[in-house]
Amino acid sequence: MGNSTGQLFRVTTFGESHGEGLGAVIDGCPPGLPLDLDEIQSDLDRRRPGQSALTTPRKERDRVQVVSGVFEGRTTGTPIALLFMNHDQDSKAYDDTKDLYRPGHADFTYASRYGHRDHRGGGRASARETVARVAAAAVARQLLAGRYGVEVVAWVRAVGTIIVDIDGSTVTRSTVESSPVRCPDAPTAARMTEAIEAARADGDTLGGVIELVARGVPPGWGSPVFDKLEADLAKSCLSLPACKGFEIGSGFSGTTMSGSEHNDAFGLQDGLVHPLTNNAGGVLGGISTGAPIRIRCAFKPVSTHFKTQQTVTADGETVSFKNSGRHDPCVLPRAVPLVEAAALLTLADHALRTGALSG
Amino acid sequence: MGNSTGQLFRVTTFGESHGEGLGAVIDGCPPGLPLDLDEIQSDLDRRRPGQSALTTPRKERDRVQVVSGVFEGRTTGTPIALLFMNHDQDSKAYDDTKDLYRPGHADFTYASRYGHRDHRGGGRASARETVARVAAAAVARQLLAGRYGVEVVAWVRAVGTIIVDIDGSTVTRSTVESSPVRCPDAPTAARMTEAIEAARADGDTLGGVIELVARGVPPGWGSPVFDKLEADLAKSCLSLPACKGFEIGSGFSGTTMSGSEHNDAFGLQDGLVHPLTNNAGGVLGGISTGAPIRIRCAFKPVSTHFKTQQTVTADGETVSFKNSGRHDPCVLPRAVPLVEAAALLTLADHALRTGALSG
Amino acid sequence: MGNSTGQLFRVTTFGESHGEGLGAVIDGCPPGLPLDLDEIQSDLDRRRPGQSALTTPRKERDRVQVVSGVFEGRTTGTPIALLFMNHDQDSKAYDDTKDLYRPGHADFTYASRYGHRDHRGGGRASARETVARVAAAAVARQLLAGRYGVEVVAWVRAVGTIIVDIDGSTVTRSTVESSPVRCPDAPTAARMTEAIEAARADGDTLGGVIELVARGVPPGWGSPVFDKLEADLAKSCLSLPACKGFEIGSGFSGTTMSGSEHNDAFGLQDGLVHPLTNNAGGVLGGISTGAPIRIRCAFKPVSTHFKTQQTVTADGETVSFKNSGRHDPCVLPRAVPLVEAAALLTLADHALRTGALSG
Amino acid sequence: MGNSTGQLFRVTTFGESHGEGLGAVIDGCPPGLPLDLDEIQSDLDRRRPGQSALTTPRKERDRVQVVSGVFEGRTTGTPIALLFMNHDQDSKAYDDTKDLYRPGHADFTYASRYGHRDHRGGGRASARETVARVAAAAVARQLLAGRYGVEVVAWVRAVGTIIVDIDGSTVTRSTVESSPVRCPDAPTAARMTEAIEAARADGDTLGGVIELVARGVPPGWGSPVFDKLEADLAKSCLSLPACKGFEIGSGFSGTTMSGSEHNDAFGLQDGLVHPLTNNAGGVLGGISTGAPIRIRCAFKPVSTHFKTQQTVTADGETVSFKNSGRHDPCVLPRAVPLVEAAALLTLADHALRTGALSG
Repeated sequence: MGNSTGQLFRVTTFGESHGEGLGAVIDGCPPGLPLDLDEIQSDLDRRRPGQSALTTPRKERDRVQVVSGVFEGRTTGTPIALLFMNHDQDSKAYDDTKDLYRPGHADFTYASRYGHRDHRGGGRASARETVARVAAAAVARQLLAGRYGVEVVAWVRAVGTIIVDIDGSTVTRSTVESSPVRCPDAPTAARMTEAIEAARADGDTLGGVIELVARGVPPGWGSPVFDKLEADLAKSCLSLPACKGFEIGSGFSGTTMSGSEHNDAFGLQDGLVHPLTNNAGGVLGGISTGAPIRIRCAFKPVSTHFKTQQTVTADGETVSFKNSGRHDPCVLPRAVPLVEAAALLTLADHALRTGALSG
Repeated sequence: MGNSTGQLFRVTTFGESHGEGLGAVIDGCPPGLPLDLDEIQSDLDRRRPGQSALTTPRKERDRVQVVSGVFEGRTTGTPIALLFMNHDQDSKAYDDTKDLYRPGHADFTYASRYGHRDHRGGGRASARETVARVAAAAVARQLLAGRYGVEVVAWVRAVGTIIVDIDGSTVTRSTVESSPVRCPDAPTAARMTEAIEAARADGDTLGGVIELVARGVPPGWGSPVFDKLEADLAKSCLSLPACKGFEIGSGFSGTTMSGSEHNDAFGLQDGLVHPLTNNAGGVLGGISTGAPIRIRCAFKPVSTHFKTQQTVTADGETVSFKNSGRHDPCVLPRAVPLVEAAALLTLADHALRTGALSG
Repeated sequence: MGNSTGQLFRVTTFGESHGEGLGAVIDGCPPGLPLDLDEIQSDLDRRRPGQSALTTPRKERDRVQVVSGVFEGRTTGTPIALLFMNHDQDSKAYDDTKDLYRPGHADFTYASRYGHRDHRGGGRASARETVARVAAAAVARQLLAGRYGVEVVAWVRAVGTIIVDIDGSTVTRSTVESSPVRCPDAPTAARMTEAIEAARADGDTLGGVIELVARGVPPGWGSPVFDKLEADLAKSCLSLPACKGFEIGSGFSGTTMSGSEHNDAFGLQDGLVHPLTNNAGGVLGGISTGAPIRIRCAFKPVSTHFKTQQTVTADGETVSFKNSGRHDPCVLPRAVPLVEAAALLTLADHALRTGALSG
Repeated sequence: MGNSTGQLFRVTTFGESHGEGLGAVIDGCPPGLPLDLDEIQSDLDRRRPGQSALTTPRKERDRVQVVSGVFEGRTTGTPIALLFMNHDQDSKAYDDTKDLYRPGHADFTYASRYGHRDHRGGGRASARETVARVAAAAVARQLLAGRYGVEVVAWVRAVGTIIVDIDGSTVTRSTVESSPVRCPDAPTAARMTEAIEAARADGDTLGGVIELVARGVPPGWGSPVFDKLEADLAKSCLSLPACKGFEIGSGFSGTTMSGSEHNDAFGLQDGLVHPLTNNAGGVLGGISTGAPIRIRCAFKPVSTHFKTQQTVTADGETVSFKNSGRHDPCVLPRAVPLVEAAALLTLADHALRTGALSG
């Protein structure tokens, strides 16, 4: 329970950081969709550690294996299983912290929930789990692009206190990808890089904010009252490791506007009804308006830093410890494909749900 | 599709603002729970309009009718149906705006989704729909309090730019209720009241932020990786009318902290492992830590203001219009029970889910 | 948990035999469907007791009340709530058997499951619960007829040992309805009536078999591997009170045929592929073939007979008792609309599911 | 959609007969359960072709690979992924029938549903798919045996017209396994073997009936009104390839009994309430009584026979053809583990569901 998402484009993931492998099963992808495996792989490569000096140099050979559901290059309508076998399962690095509850990590809560804990690299709680979501979302991306003309782009909006406003109507994935820190504004990207390097030098870590825009979503996607589009987007984002906040459109800052400022007037665009501004962020009453969907996600600073910490062992002893090894001082660049994955899975599901009801 | 929430404590709602009635069916409430109907009614009265000078004087006679699932004062384990018949279905007030898409409202998106629209007071998109959630959540509250000792309290943290920090470890529902604006800090409450009155005089509206604390949730609730406790809380909150943002623990402001500041060290409390601080807001890796769960929700300003607005009619004509009638200039006081309802439904579901897995 | 059926045409029922009321909520009915309430009512009247001398003369005033989801005569796409308030809740007749576990009834199993029991007329276990299914199915019938041209007809195939083969390609609902025992073969119907009267005179009861045909289902409905069309039909039927068996097409008797006899050759009919015979009963591999779907359901004899029975009380005492009051000696005539309801709900759901995947 | 079963012990399967591989993901297996992989393998070996002279000599090397969810020999509470890579994907044998719709097979219906067809050995519609269910069910068996003391045994009751009554209270798996045809009555088994050999010699095929008993299920499992225990058992069985009928307890033959014969009186057994007979087959009102659960499933004769058949090609030409290759003339012996799997998955799910509600 808890390892599936979506009602019609339904994805189930499995696997632990240092187990035999990880994967995803997509049940509900429509048949006949041409699948470009290279594109899936390139989406996967974006979340891989070791892409740049900014990210951890651990090597994860994440070659996706399509086990089922694709025949002669097209989806068949049967479940698509995507598999990643783990090749480097050396978990010795985790032996030191094996018996203690690392602050900021899920060691204590998993032990509370399941009565035991897989200490090897976080087990199921590891961010490595997201490889499966990103793979499934890469299929969703091709469905959304091919059948609906939807395009999803995310970028780093803030690292620590360094923040930048980007024009969501024009930003492209290639601009984002051209920056190692995945911030499409070069001067800001440079300052973010500096801040990350400084944190690394200090043995400390940083958080930040990811922003995302989905362009081309037609009016009418979303299933009120509980499965509002923004509600499912929020859930999908908050299910990402380290995500602590979500907003859509004006979000928290919109709470200080007056109603007459905030309301987006409707006008006509090519003869079609369209909001003239977009404080709503592309949704009204849980359903897409046709304007770009715009969301932001807050990520807490990485929990694995290299300063001394206090904690408790499984046996109830108070201890202090210090992490060793190599870890990202800032996950924000690698969180970009994760937030895209969260949005893509939600949008693909709602695309099919809207089609079903009109059926 | 979309009108149910929860896996084990499963709630389905129905009904439109100006239809025959509204209601909720709870499937999965454990048997044998004594239900206090007066408490349910008092939870309902808190969301009712017309409670004070600050809220709209429309009268809604929301007497809950328990149609099934309760026998001799206790739940039977069969579905509990809670019904509210509408007595005052006069929808003439909405005739003026019947053919136009009101900005900030779901008129256009419902028409896009369903091919038509129930113009009477917003139909299913009306905030009136929340009466059913609050009723179901009142049952959840009694389950959570009676079986698990969980207590949920929300309050108004901000109205427009007026904001206050409240100590979540001590705030009580009765303190909150003693303030008409539902802000437990009297001087702030007075300023909020003033701001709301000024907005009303100006024909404009305000938004704000609700904060909530859930005390007594034991370690171990939550179902990673998709049904993390914070993910389901976020979804539940974002499914509330006008909610545009969610955060848990340090949330967006935590993104500017360093990892060494943000991590909550573990210590011992009465011999049990417990976080010594609570930047995490009571969850790690999607599972409760035993610390209070603390969330915040952003509500946009009310969409029904009384200034002239531009929009488009269903026939594609550009028009300007002005609302009339009586409407809340600020929903924040009435949003308090809604955010509580969102949290209560999520917590009740996860309480049962955790029990099921241990089963 | 357990009181909902269907994935896209999702129905949740509630209510007890002698509680305040019963009802159903349909979430997922497409918008824009014209609903004929008189037809719904006439479907309901078919399951009502007291329709003829053969059925119990108890009066159930089951006027359906449409609480939501319908506006100006059409479905809106929001949940349709159908309500039946109980007017005659006199449960004194059940006081005698209040403390003992009636053989053949669910008294003991409900007590085991829920830790208590609502003795009033069986509570949730009463066949009265089916009023909600029949109402929801009446909506499904209009959806299936109006949008897909599907027609569902059931009839009594056997009462006790009296059995008849009916031609499923031509039988009509009006022929079935013209017979009080709902067997469209008049001589057999007469013998069935006699057998039922003899059982009544003897204070005993009878079982039998219902047969059903669904004509007009196009090829392609069904969702293997678990949600095969026949699997969902079987589940829907076995969830009816007193149903102990299900078969589709050749069923149990087909097990004695050879493969070369059993296989239905494909041919062309109006240029379309079509099975030339129908041992398969309209499905292959869990998906409809376009041939009529043909199923049969076994109903055990009514558990409430009037002979002396041995049983045990809730306090663990062995006792003997005898039922009194008025009860159907044979439910078969009234089971006809129930089996239709089971099939209609399943078919409506799969119609939408097939549409969704093609989406 | 359609490839998952269960609410709490939730199993999703994937994979095609001649694709890369097949597998199952179990989400919801409680943590801490010791898993014996040899037992899982031995359950798998029972469904394997080529076990005896009676079954097809094709070799399927089905070594299960546990990809996740098990750590140090015990389940962790995270998803258990079970994988089978296909090693022998030679699909040339199917080239002859590639363009025609084989009678009795799902070629035409899959093409109708999905707009195309994977002709290689039936693709997803192949009985090979059941390897994944049997693997998942082997985990369920260990959960049911270890935590609840439940034992599930199935056997061949009939092959064609040869039928035998077996005492379900005493039959053991080892007795069943000692017979190549999996009928525990030696003389009947001999006659069945003869009949199967005769059919093979004739190029024809046979069907039959499997019977199953589940002993040790306590009173109280099942979730009325839709998820009655017998309803979920029926669905699970009817989702097996070639299954056309299901009955529980007295089933179809019970329809000819009178109510006074059929009702099972309650008595006391070791001080506990217990039915003295078992016409009900272990359930009343959708909930287990504590008596053995007894079901029967009808399997149609194998569709792949070796006589000339008429059919239609995908291009709409009428043709005649004849199968070649090696195929089982009778699947009944190999259907025994499939029916066990169907029952085990359903029972494991309801075990957890009952625990959840009591929670």
